[in-house]
Amino acid sequence: MAGHPNPGHSITLRVSAPAGMSSTSELAVATTEAGAAVTALDIVESSPDSMIVDVSCNTIDDDHAARVAEALGALDGVSVQHVSDRTFLMHLGGKLSVEAKSPLRTRDDLSRAYTPGVARVCKAIAANPESARNLTIKRNTVAVVTDGTSVLGLGDIGPAAAMPVMEGKAVLFKQFAGVDAWPVCLDTKDTEKIIEIVKAIAPTYGGINLEDIAAPRCFEIERRLREELDIPVFHDDQHGTAIVVLAALINALRVVDKKIEDVRIVVSGVGAAGHAIIQLLIAHGARHIVGVARKGALHRGETYQDEHRAWIAEHTNEEDFSGTLAEAVAGADVFVGVSAPDLLTAEDIATMNERAVVMALANPDPEIHPVEAAKHAMVVATGRSDFPNQINNVLAFPGLFRGLLDAGASEVTTELLVAAATAIADCVDADELNPSFIVPSVFNPRVAKDVAAAVHQAARATGTALPETPEGAAPLPEVTP
Amino acid sequence: MAGHPNPGHSITLRVSAPAGMSSTSELAVATTEAGAAVTALDIVESSPDSMIVDVSCNTIDDDHAARVAEALGALDGVSVQHVSDRTFLMHLGGKLSVEAKSPLRTRDDLSRAYTPGVARVCKAIAANPESARNLTIKRNTVAVVTDGTSVLGLGDIGPAAAMPVMEGKAVLFKQFAGVDAWPVCLDTKDTEKIIEIVKAIAPTYGGINLEDIAAPRCFEIERRLREELDIPVFHDDQHGTAIVVLAALINALRVVDKKIEDVRIVVSGVGAAGHAIIQLLIAHGARHIVGVARKGALHRGETYQDEHRAWIAEHTNEEDFSGTLAEAVAGADVFVGVSAPDLLTAEDIATMNERAVVMALANPDPEIHPVEAAKHAMVVATGRSDFPNQINNVLAFPGLFRGLLDAGASEVTTELLVAAATAIADCVDADELNPSFIVPSVFNPRVAKDVAAAVHQAARATGTALPETPEGAAPLPEVTP
Repeated sequence: MAGHPNPGHSITLRVSAPAGMSSTSELAVATTEAGAAVTALDIVESSPDSMIVDVSCNTIDDDHAARVAEALGALDGVSVQHVSDRTFLMHLGGKLSVEAKSPLRTRDDLSRAYTPGVARVCKAIAANPESARNLTIKRNTVAVVTDGTSVLGLGDIGPAAAMPVMEGKAVLFKQFAGVDAWPVCLDTKDTEKIIEIVKAIAPTYGGINLEDIAAPRCFEIERRLREELDIPVFHDDQHGTAIVVLAALINALRVVDKKIEDVRIVVSGVGAAGHAIIQLLIAHGARHIVGVARKGALHRGETYQDEHRAWIAEHTNEEDFSGTLAEAVAGADVFVGVSAPDLLTAEDIATMNERAVVMALANPDPEIHPVEAAKHAMVVATGRSDFPNQINNVLAFPGLFRGLLDAGASEVTTELLVAAATAIADCVDADELNPSFIVPSVFNPRVAKDVAAAVHQAARATGTALPETPEGAAPLPEVTP
Repeated sequence: MAGHPNPGHSITLRVSAPAGMSSTSELAVATTEAGAAVTALDIVESSPDSMIVDVSCNTIDDDHAARVAEALGALDGVSVQHVSDRTFLMHLGGKLSVEAKSPLRTRDDLSRAYTPGVARVCKAIAANPESARNLTIKRNTVAVVTDGTSVLGLGDIGPAAAMPVMEGKAVLFKQFAGVDAWPVCLDTKDTEKIIEIVKAIAPTYGGINLEDIAAPRCFEIERRLREELDIPVFHDDQHGTAIVVLAALINALRVVDKKIEDVRIVVSGVGAAGHAIIQLLIAHGARHIVGVARKGALHRGETYQDEHRAWIAEHTNEEDFSGTLAEAVAGADVFVGVSAPDLLTAEDIATMNERAVVMALANPDPEIHPVEAAKHAMVVATGRSDFPNQINNVLAFPGLFRGLLDAGASEVTTELLVAAATAIADCVDADELNPSFIVPSVFNPRVAKDVAAAVHQAARATGTALPETPEGAAPLPEVTP
């Protein structure tokens, strides 16, 4: 997939140029002709003869940015003084700050927030550990935990290099759902140590969001932490993706007018995300699923060492189909890809059932280019923001944790995941729904609210929530005469 | 020490009372007569016949608060509807929030702060790990780590109950020095596990502040982390206290006109704080120190299993004095107590050398009541905010870490501790200095700034700082034509 200029690769070139209107328009033209998209021209300094101009533009990649700089430098009288990368500028100093909810202006404030007053609050929590939820940041705070082994499409880049993603995740948590999230980037890949560490740091947090931890250890880490902690534990790469896929599928099936229990679904990729997707689709009523690995469909005729593949083989593929991916999609209604780029062609999609749904989610390059897929499929979704129907976990995790925290939930059950998916799907109104709009915009403020409300309600209904107490009323020591 | 009303124990009583001026003044009088200090009277609702009034006042303790409520309830026509505790109200929901430095308003913002743009920032850090300091929150972020085993004077109350103190500490870090600090309250008391966990979470942080960890494991934890991490590690209960004690002593000696190398100093308490104080006083030139434990002075005539006591015995007490605390202070110039309440009497202080300095820092009740001590000592300091000369670590740790982070320091050396102490002492100008003002106010904004500058400079001078780079310029990938 050839790149095009994107704001993730936006640069600002500071150039000196001869004064005058013709000069700025020449800069704009040259930038555009070099293939970049101009977003701003700012005159920084001006004198009768010359001026300093900041040319901001979106480029394709580093090489392209260098070519743009070269093109400007080749203009008559123009020299490029400095090229800065706006994505890097945004990251300077990191993206998060820790703020005091109320400043300490006086000695009285200090006496309450810190010594000596704080001692009574500590004693109250020691006497009644449940009150930590009210008297500390716990009730609104989530740890975003990674070991940096499976970050975006970059693989095992380590905990320090994973920080920008975890900080970004924390920004999204705050922006979309008011959740305080904190990056916990662990310098260990040892499953037992990760479990031990997360358990040890848990007193501060009301929930754990596992992130970008490589399979298979992500399964064991999640399973054990769910068993051993009394706060909800959620691996976003599995269940966040599954929620949004289910939400998109619910709406896609509305568009193509098919029922989930009837459709034949092929899931390409049976790692962490594929496994979670298959489980959630089954929980919501899907009955005909084939999971396909690199070597072909998983089926009962084969023995799998990996318990997650064994589970898929056991619970899907009722016809024990054993062919390739291309063979599997023939006659299928839905394709969900969480695997690798360019595995399918338009011809493969043509063999699918009529009114086919294709979700090609491999990142950054999907299993099939969406334009190719759309030649034969009725609905096409990807993980990319530059095509319609972006399947983006940010639709799920902020609202999900908002709901979990509000409910004081102790665990994340499948019912809650389904509730979240249904709420996301229902954010697209019936009169908005069409093949290019099966998921709401990530900037739709209603999404996180509706997801939170649905999860909160489902937590109460399924009994994983704390008993309802009036806000802040619970464990305050009260002096009553 | 009899209590008096304090703002750490401030309550608000919501009462219904007959309407009219005489009624509010009756409430104020009754509150005052019950021994509380009225801080506000707010009319919440009013009708021709009656009104609802919030009476806010400082009380001594829970029993006293109950007596105040009883006194108001006994007034004619008055009934107390609710008593709320303002310290607890301040803690509702915790004291910290995590904020995004810049909000994500548009898709472009999202593309830079998160996917796809963030991937390039991750790759840059993976390629050059040093750049994490510039491109993540690391350069301004400190972990406040505790196991909750030695919190204030409360002892082993556990990690959840320690949270309010660690949150308060983070508030102070931000307020006084702009440092982002985050509570890490660990649900383990195992020395090796604590070391392992702090090492594992370290990629996020530019410094580690150990807090309220019981001796002796605090020594081993600090020692090992200093060896094994490349960021500064600082146990505040040891070295923070030592810095402020040295600062206070520098100024006290100016007041009494004695020299540190000449004075005889008795340190009562040879735990974490006492050991660090003795080390720092020696580093700054003290030559005559006697450390006193519960059983008496530490001296060469005895063998100590504990290596820290053995060190003290080896490096102090050149006369091998072996008596009690009361015997030790006879003829001494300076008493520093970090031990237990009420160990000394005014008569003991009378046996000290003329122009004696007494720092009785046991919390909340000092080794001798400051009023008693002042009968015979020229300078008296305590840890309490309700007497002059409060020895408060908040004078040290915010500015210290500000300086360490600004310098990119990799370790905390004794030189840096002395630099911090000297800077604090020098915040009291010569014309301000007097027996009741040997340390600056905790609210003096100059303190953290001066401490930071002194520490920064000392780090450069001693070679523990990173090489100087223009702010933000360092490892940005730059496209130059």
